[in-house]
Amino acid sequence: MIRFPSPTGTLSFFHSEHHFSKLFPSCIRIPTSTGIPFPDVARVGCIMGSCGSCENCKQDLENYCPKMLWTYNGQYEDGTRAFGGYSDKFVVEEHFVVRIPNDIPLAGAAPQLCAGITVYSPLKYFGLVPQPSSDKHLGVVGLRGIGHMAVKFAKAFGARVTVISSSPSKEKEAVERLGADSFLISHDHEKLAAALGTMDGIIDTVSASRSLLPLIGLLKTSRKLVLVGAPVEPSELPVFPLIMGRKVIASSAIRGMKETQEIIDFAANTTPKTLSDNGKKPF
Amino acid sequence: MIRFPSPTGTLSFFHSEHHFSKLFPSCIRIPTSTGIPFPDVARVGCIMGSCGSCENCKQDLENYCPKMLWTYNGQYEDGTRAFGGYSDKFVVEEHFVVRIPNDIPLAGAAPQLCAGITVYSPLKYFGLVPQPSSDKHLGVVGLRGIGHMAVKFAKAFGARVTVISSSPSKEKEAVERLGADSFLISHDHEKLAAALGTMDGIIDTVSASRSLLPLIGLLKTSRKLVLVGAPVEPSELPVFPLIMGRKVIASSAIRGMKETQEIIDFAANTTPKTLSDNGKKPF
Repeated sequence: MIRFPSPTGTLSFFHSEHHFSKLFPSCIRIPTSTGIPFPDVARVGCIMGSCGSCENCKQDLENYCPKMLWTYNGQYEDGTRAFGGYSDKFVVEEHFVVRIPNDIPLAGAAPQLCAGITVYSPLKYFGLVPQPSSDKHLGVVGLRGIGHMAVKFAKAFGARVTVISSSPSKEKEAVERLGADSFLISHDHEKLAAALGTMDGIIDTVSASRSLLPLIGLLKTSRKLVLVGAPVEPSELPVFPLIMGRKVIASSAIRGMKETQEIIDFAANTTPKTLSDNGKKPF
Repeated sequence: MIRFPSPTGTLSFFHSEHHFSKLFPSCIRIPTSTGIPFPDVARVGCIMGSCGSCENCKQDLENYCPKMLWTYNGQYEDGTRAFGGYSDKFVVEEHFVVRIPNDIPLAGAAPQLCAGITVYSPLKYFGLVPQPSSDKHLGVVGLRGIGHMAVKFAKAFGARVTVISSSPSKEKEAVERLGADSFLISHDHEKLAAALGTMDGIIDTVSASRSLLPLIGLLKTSRKLVLVGAPVEPSELPVFPLIMGRKVIASSAIRGMKETQEIIDFAANTTPKTLSDNGKKPF
């Protein structure tokens, strides 16, 4: 058993001896006999520790705590590495455990705690969620794990969504399966030119360094390009096109425990009808 | 006489035959005999035309209008170039003329309409102005024309200001003349490291492409680096350090006529006492 050396000295023991999910090893079912005041499924997300006392922790931003401990490859104080989903046991503080309501299947809950929160949080924080009776046209760049979630949440929030991808083969998936409204191939310069200045916000999920010029061009004045992918090499930022529209490059990485719980509750309370044009439940 | 072909068909003739300022050729004194309802000094700023009907123009953002006409090197519909401060005559619509109250000397008013508005507007728009009884620590990168203005306005708004420059010789000017609170040399890695995560916002006035990594590091979580300089080559944007603090690269370029008038009125109504720690009037 890996024991998380909590800086606060309090530990809750959510072991995995019982009802362990083979698909999602970090999902654990808490036997009711333990009396732990959680529903019958709890889950550890991307992080499983933080200092608890810094300015970030005080603002529910444990994910930006300098001492944040990643569930995946995080380093404990004794030098041991965390194995994330490859672990067969976890010990974490209660604060870092997310309650999973019974009506959300583990297969649906698992990606919310990483890819889901990665896009849910910035969509709300950076004002990309349409207000009632208003319209927002959002771009989602890339259609892998995080991109899928971005389309689903943007649609659930009521936005018009254009997926931007380098793979023409993704169009069918984007439009027919996920309910995106339109699709742009990122090297189709003619169609990109026609879409200049049409978007109210863009979530870029691609983890490859490149020039941000085409995406900046798609934004309306004063709008935001939100980066959630993390390329190793720096990207190219053309400043003049940015400043000539008061545009913004924003960024975000997962989120703290309070909003990670919120996303699960949102998923539990969102009916298929509101989720996408084709009525598919995104979770 | 250069005649600005107004898209709206209305022109006001603010000629320069009378009381022309040799120092600031685009500043014109309107003879009271003309009956024009302006104070006795008016001035043309960075822009002298826009379409008047696009979304930007409707929101007082003529500066982002696709048809915006620069006072400097702007191209009229007939192909003629505007000569900015080198002109000896201007014809512009009233909308693009700024009223200059009598108690602001032309030498003080002139830079407000370009360098001044370049920093005044984003300081306010991006929330870098301290609220009453709160503290903000702002960085100003570069101490040339725009940097000077950034320090002056940041101090006038009540912020603590650190000037960041590659020239050690600028320290005296920054601290003693402009009232900055501290000074960092941009290649002093030890002092930069000590200042990591200490700033509530940064205005970068430098027009040279480079890596934005050191400046991103100086910001606290969720804070903004505002670019107002315009390098020709793209800058390097390291994305991982950005997303691991939900940091933002914002941008801004001058501003529309409404706020350009506002900055002049602010200058007229700001007393030296509130302008900087050393009591110097910034205008």
